[in-house]
Amino acid sequence: MPATKAEALQSFKETIRKIKSYEEALGVLYWDLRTGAPRKGMDTRSEAIGALSGDMFKLSTSPELGEWLSALEEKHAYAELSEIEQRLVTETRKDYDRSVLIPPQLYQEYVVLASQSESKWEEAKASNDYAGFQPYLEKVIAYTNQFIDLWGAKATRYDTLLDQYEPGMTVAELDRVFGGLRAELVPLAAAIASSAHQPDTSFLRQSFDKSAQKAFSLYILEQMGYDFSAGRLDESVHPFATGLSPGDVRITTRYLEDDVTSALFGTIHEGGHALYEQNIMDELIGTTLCTGTSMGIHESQSRFWENVIGRSRPFWNRYFGELQQRFPGQLDVSVDQFYRGNNVVQPSLIRIEADELTYNLHIIIRYEMEKLIFNEGAKAADLPALWNDKYREYLGVVPSNDAEGVLQDVHWSGGAFGYFPSYSLGNMYAAQFADTMEQELSGFWSHVEAGNLLPIKQWLTERIYKYGKLRTPAELIASVTGKPLDPKHLVAYLSKKYSDIYRLS
Amino acid sequence: MPATKAEALQSFKETIRKIKSYEEALGVLYWDLRTGAPRKGMDTRSEAIGALSGDMFKLSTSPELGEWLSALEEKHAYAELSEIEQRLVTETRKDYDRSVLIPPQLYQEYVVLASQSESKWEEAKASNDYAGFQPYLEKVIAYTNQFIDLWGAKATRYDTLLDQYEPGMTVAELDRVFGGLRAELVPLAAAIASSAHQPDTSFLRQSFDKSAQKAFSLYILEQMGYDFSAGRLDESVHPFATGLSPGDVRITTRYLEDDVTSALFGTIHEGGHALYEQNIMDELIGTTLCTGTSMGIHESQSRFWENVIGRSRPFWNRYFGELQQRFPGQLDVSVDQFYRGNNVVQPSLIRIEADELTYNLHIIIRYEMEKLIFNEGAKAADLPALWNDKYREYLGVVPSNDAEGVLQDVHWSGGAFGYFPSYSLGNMYAAQFADTMEQELSGFWSHVEAGNLLPIKQWLTERIYKYGKLRTPAELIASVTGKPLDPKHLVAYLSKKYSDIYRLS
Repeated sequence: MPATKAEALQSFKETIRKIKSYEEALGVLYWDLRTGAPRKGMDTRSEAIGALSGDMFKLSTSPELGEWLSALEEKHAYAELSEIEQRLVTETRKDYDRSVLIPPQLYQEYVVLASQSESKWEEAKASNDYAGFQPYLEKVIAYTNQFIDLWGAKATRYDTLLDQYEPGMTVAELDRVFGGLRAELVPLAAAIASSAHQPDTSFLRQSFDKSAQKAFSLYILEQMGYDFSAGRLDESVHPFATGLSPGDVRITTRYLEDDVTSALFGTIHEGGHALYEQNIMDELIGTTLCTGTSMGIHESQSRFWENVIGRSRPFWNRYFGELQQRFPGQLDVSVDQFYRGNNVVQPSLIRIEADELTYNLHIIIRYEMEKLIFNEGAKAADLPALWNDKYREYLGVVPSNDAEGVLQDVHWSGGAFGYFPSYSLGNMYAAQFADTMEQELSGFWSHVEAGNLLPIKQWLTERIYKYGKLRTPAELIASVTGKPLDPKHLVAYLSKKYSDIYRLS
Repeated sequence: MPATKAEALQSFKETIRKIKSYEEALGVLYWDLRTGAPRKGMDTRSEAIGALSGDMFKLSTSPELGEWLSALEEKHAYAELSEIEQRLVTETRKDYDRSVLIPPQLYQEYVVLASQSESKWEEAKASNDYAGFQPYLEKVIAYTNQFIDLWGAKATRYDTLLDQYEPGMTVAELDRVFGGLRAELVPLAAAIASSAHQPDTSFLRQSFDKSAQKAFSLYILEQMGYDFSAGRLDESVHPFATGLSPGDVRITTRYLEDDVTSALFGTIHEGGHALYEQNIMDELIGTTLCTGTSMGIHESQSRFWENVIGRSRPFWNRYFGELQQRFPGQLDVSVDQFYRGNNVVQPSLIRIEADELTYNLHIIIRYEMEKLIFNEGAKAADLPALWNDKYREYLGVVPSNDAEGVLQDVHWSGGAFGYFPSYSLGNMYAAQFADTMEQELSGFWSHVEAGNLLPIKQWLTERIYKYGKLRTPAELIASVTGKPLDPKHLVAYLSKKYSDIYRLS
């Protein structure tokens, strides 16, 4: 490599490192805002976030960065790069083009609009006023369409949006997997609803001491192998995980006095996200590859730990006795009753309260609507009726108003179109990974039943976590499971689990 | 003002605002490091802090900033500026010149040296090894001397260092005030030591529930008028206050199980710093004038609240009953016993454990030694003997080793020469402000005795807090008290208080 190429590589890597430093600083500022920053400091804090974000954007769209990228993409130069460097060039090019294709003025207008639209959505949801929100949503859709034009439409216009959150994911692929999923889950949900064997949940509704809940959550995190010298657990209104670096991956939860498992499952969920980020290989530190490879893969790890492990019978065979001891006299039920009570399936209107089965139908509805908006030109005015029709068809329930219907989620108000599929992709990836793990990790469920969770973390680290963004989602699912994404794993998992719980014939 | 001047003013103010945003972001990162950031994240966090600090340094030393300053300093332009803008230009010029006069390479070397020297000091203190630390201290002194040469020596070389922490303060002034103070305090401390009426402190040594300590600390903060929607109280090994903006001023404390007032007085102390920063006028927000005007004035506010108010008899007449109720059966002493037990004067070796009287002698010793180093050329090798002689002379105690002598403080290892005087300046300013307050605020001590602390906060806000850095320390003490700094106020306060407690004739 000639001297200028070596210089380009060095400058490129230094800039990436600096971008990563800015990301980390911004990560701390956002974490702080969500875990107890004083209200009156918001104005100057927003300004500080704006200043840092602006400088980071300048760094990541500078003409120099474009020149270094071009130099490194040149055939001979590229061939001499390490695998990590090559992937870093590819990923940076993708982000760079995406950013520079949008005129700064247009983007600035959009940021202001999105912020107003989110505020308006909050009001509209509180007052059940879709009409008041509709003009904002129309504009957000119009800007998003402009962005698609600037970025260039892929196979379909909506494909361009999907690729932001799940690189390489397409409408063709999602139609295939979601189609398969929907066809199986709609009748399964109906069979469950008409089962005579509905679990008892009455014992879950008591007053459970919060500090005991917290102690148990911390205990389970430690059992999972969460590294407390590389993270911390705090409280926030909406639980989240944030990976500042593999050495600092923080999670939050929310303790509900009247629910003994809500905070626990939230903690396990965020703990799953955190295990991913804590175990990325050292070689990726200081690069933009040092994070999860996609929203869907990230969600597969949180949902694997929360649902596949945390809501399993072997898990509770091991841990229910300890939970009972922490709430003396309050959980006088059998482990079977407890397990079934924590695995109720019930078609409902609200996505974030849905069980692990019907949750997927909530997502498929949103996916189909986003396709209608961007590929079929559905208008904002049409959305409430479309929404209600799909809920009736897939879930057998109809919202009594838009607040519990089309207005329930924040995502669209801020322009996050293409994000929803990640959640169900996470469920499908998780089930497919779990099937491979069961084959490869001998005594998998005996480990869970013995509270021996570290081999599971270890397997996930070796096969998934350590690669960070070094493999794409499609490469990862293929390399780990030997085949592309297939919804049959999730369908089989759900059928087996719920046939047992609801005693379906 | 011609268009170019208006442009210079706008660019200047935007740059200052951005510097302030970076300062705020860095402030959050430092706060986070000291209140529980995970150990394993230190490396990338240091890198992030380095990246932000470097960019902030570039902003504050850019040639453009120099040009805008020159344009605004031009006579006609300056005259048209508002009072705030004028002061901002003056202060920025001072910082700008100080920064640009040091070659970046030299400064970089110094930063590395200071960091090594601090580590070495920590080791040396732990192993009582002054000889091992001495070469580092010699180098730090040599670099500091180079900086004085580059900045230019004022009336004396040490004046140049003082000005960093207490703008406008001089050796001539400090010799005057510390001379007066020392002459009075040495015999007073001796009289106290030989008094037959030593307070009983045995009741203070019990096990006091930490959560009750915390609740009482929060209660007293609220009584002082600390605004919890513009701040928060956390725990850290070394208590501190950090003003991120007037809307976010955070404090920390440290709860000691075996001491019922240590955390409380720490909280009141940091709360005093916080009241200052929370109550700076809105017009200064987003400028570098939005902070305390000097270390000494800042310390006057923490020490006023901690000592003048918090260790006073009227304060405990009001609050002791409530403290007793929070520790049932543990504090069965009279309020007089409690008050006296919390106001013990005892010559000692360690500054940070000293009482409010002898503390000043610890500072005067350090001041005299810093003068010897920079104005008389005293060598690092001479410091232990000089130190021990002065402790014998002023405090009547002699360190048995350097760890409890010349090695006790971190300041010199990191090059913070000129900082120590701030602590005693704080005590003197506080006593002088208090005398004026007693005259101007009718029923001052009755307010304290009634737990009516808000008029005191209000008076301090109107006379001191709101001005931030808009007035220099000398302007402030003159405008508030009508005269320059005079040590007689502190001497009178201490003589009166301790003559009563120790029943001196």
